[in-house]
Amino acid sequence: MANRFSAGYLISDADYETAKQRALNITVEQTVEIPRDIVPAGYVEDEILGRLEALEAADGGYIAEISYSLDDVGGDFLQLLNVLFGNSSILSKTRLVWMKPCDGLEAITPGPRFGRAGFYDLAGVSSGPLLMSAIKPVGLSTAELARLAGDFARGGMDFVKDDHGLVDQKTAPFSERLAACVDAIGEANAKTGFRTRFIPNITAEGGRTIERAYEAKEKGAGGVMLAPALAGYDIARQLAADADFGLPVISHPAFSGANVVGGDCGFSHRFYFGTLQRLMGVDATVYPNFGGRFGFSRDECLSIVDGCSEAFSNIKPILPAPGGGMTFERVPEMKAAYGKDVVYLIGGALIRERATLADACKRLAEAVRAT
Amino acid sequence: MANRFSAGYLISDADYETAKQRALNITVEQTVEIPRDIVPAGYVEDEILGRLEALEAADGGYIAEISYSLDDVGGDFLQLLNVLFGNSSILSKTRLVWMKPCDGLEAITPGPRFGRAGFYDLAGVSSGPLLMSAIKPVGLSTAELARLAGDFARGGMDFVKDDHGLVDQKTAPFSERLAACVDAIGEANAKTGFRTRFIPNITAEGGRTIERAYEAKEKGAGGVMLAPALAGYDIARQLAADADFGLPVISHPAFSGANVVGGDCGFSHRFYFGTLQRLMGVDATVYPNFGGRFGFSRDECLSIVDGCSEAFSNIKPILPAPGGGMTFERVPEMKAAYGKDVVYLIGGALIRERATLADACKRLAEAVRAT
Repeated sequence: MANRFSAGYLISDADYETAKQRALNITVEQTVEIPRDIVPAGYVEDEILGRLEALEAADGGYIAEISYSLDDVGGDFLQLLNVLFGNSSILSKTRLVWMKPCDGLEAITPGPRFGRAGFYDLAGVSSGPLLMSAIKPVGLSTAELARLAGDFARGGMDFVKDDHGLVDQKTAPFSERLAACVDAIGEANAKTGFRTRFIPNITAEGGRTIERAYEAKEKGAGGVMLAPALAGYDIARQLAADADFGLPVISHPAFSGANVVGGDCGFSHRFYFGTLQRLMGVDATVYPNFGGRFGFSRDECLSIVDGCSEAFSNIKPILPAPGGGMTFERVPEMKAAYGKDVVYLIGGALIRERATLADACKRLAEAVRAT
Repeated sequence: MANRFSAGYLISDADYETAKQRALNITVEQTVEIPRDIVPAGYVEDEILGRLEALEAADGGYIAEISYSLDDVGGDFLQLLNVLFGNSSILSKTRLVWMKPCDGLEAITPGPRFGRAGFYDLAGVSSGPLLMSAIKPVGLSTAELARLAGDFARGGMDFVKDDHGLVDQKTAPFSERLAACVDAIGEANAKTGFRTRFIPNITAEGGRTIERAYEAKEKGAGGVMLAPALAGYDIARQLAADADFGLPVISHPAFSGANVVGGDCGFSHRFYFGTLQRLMGVDATVYPNFGGRFGFSRDECLSIVDGCSEAFSNIKPILPAPGGGMTFERVPEMKAAYGKDVVYLIGGALIRERATLADACKRLAEAVRAT
């Protein structure tokens, strides 16, 4: 018998008996996908078929805990995700809210190479908060974007990343922008003594994502960013598992929002922006902060922090990177919510101070790090 | 000035003025992602910034048509998707319902290589409906699965595919299963004169998806299936654009459901399972049929058919492949809904007739093709 991991599904709009039947349907849907009464006896029924381990009343319905065999996964990370919520993602009023790991998961994914502690090491500090900003908008020239990157670095930001909309447009092609930003930041670091790192966006067509990851490494980038919902859920794991690569991976939520905002379907915020990112090998996970331009609540954001940091197999904790509409005024509120283990992503509010950007970055760092 | 494509967003829970402000926010969010008042004048504001082209009352709210410049995409297919609904996918009560193409899109994606007409050619007929079944469950041995494939072929199914949960498990490893199923089907075809084609599931870790696609081709498969929401939205396009590959691509909805079932967020069924699949280069799109185990309505399913078949740039129409809970009894209802341009995917109801499977397939084919 192989080890079994399990998932918790919130089944809403159901009484106990209905919830139980729907939970039993999930045990079939996620594994054998043939009518229950014709599941072959023996190995398939005993090992492969999902098992309803518990069904308990919860806020909004019933939580069904269903376990699955590692045999059904084989060695394939995407099949792990498929078993967790492949077809059942299409069900209404059924939400994957958590996962419980089991021994043997490390053969399917190593998790992040750096994680929270490694990220602090790269930034040259022993604890956070860390600061990250983004060069933008799309449409500026390479020279203009590199100047921005240099100013962010002079201001002492720990990380400067590409906006996720910067790919390979003719106004600032990937290779040219990467080289120019690494140079501008290197020059600034040489003067200031800061250790600012540049994080290019490597989300690209097919195999080119991995090529750009390696180009980023060769040209001196300090990490890479990608949008897993576009590029595929296995790219970060590939990079994390690759000892030759050896840079941290930041994930961006582009194209993924519908996975959480439907409310009673899809994934919990905790799982999608926390647990799943760790399984994928992501070191820091960007998501929209509460009170910004998107509708995530404070509680949903703090559940993401839990998903990033709770004990989970031997997979390292990672850093939450809330962004989207952060302003100077909101620093006290964010410090109260997030404490030290966080990367603050702040873009527009700094770019607004374009004329004195390095000073604005320093003021931000002081506000964030004041006790 | 570059050509502009546009998208329609359904903005719900809003009066006209609120809807207009939210639409204007989308023009910023999807492009420059900095506050509107600091968008640089000139090229960035005039060309890159999204443009609100129309705002009209619609069922459930207002439809905002927003246009975007091909300059913001460059040559990258994933950036096309990012511009359409990257960050805004995280907004509540905002749903991408349609897209209008523009000239120049063909440089970003060729669309499907085969499409509807090519699929008929492969099946050796001039029109549908076509029939596809799936070998399963996971946990059976290679020999058992190959025997099933052979029986489906003897029954005259046009396509036999892997269940999407079959990847590379030790009970039936990918390469072994592929070879055995192609052999079993080839043997059957030699006796019957049918032209049944085997479609393996190539969804796999990172670059291995493309490797498996080529292994499928070399070993005589008749097409490949993948789950874009897991493997990434660019793989099908890569395969469709690759003249050396030259097999049709079928997409599976695993892990993608939350993109449509949230109702007022995410994507319309028409766009996600129709338009998007064509943009991705998919030749036939599997989705759950109405009245089966999932909650799609008849209207939602027919909107997918529209998305698959309506005129859209020079991108070929493709085939809808409704599946999930189809039974013999439902054939008349499905014929009335879908007409001829369809691939019926029927698995469990046939496997139930395991002892006389080839006969059951023939009865199904007669029922489906009777006029």
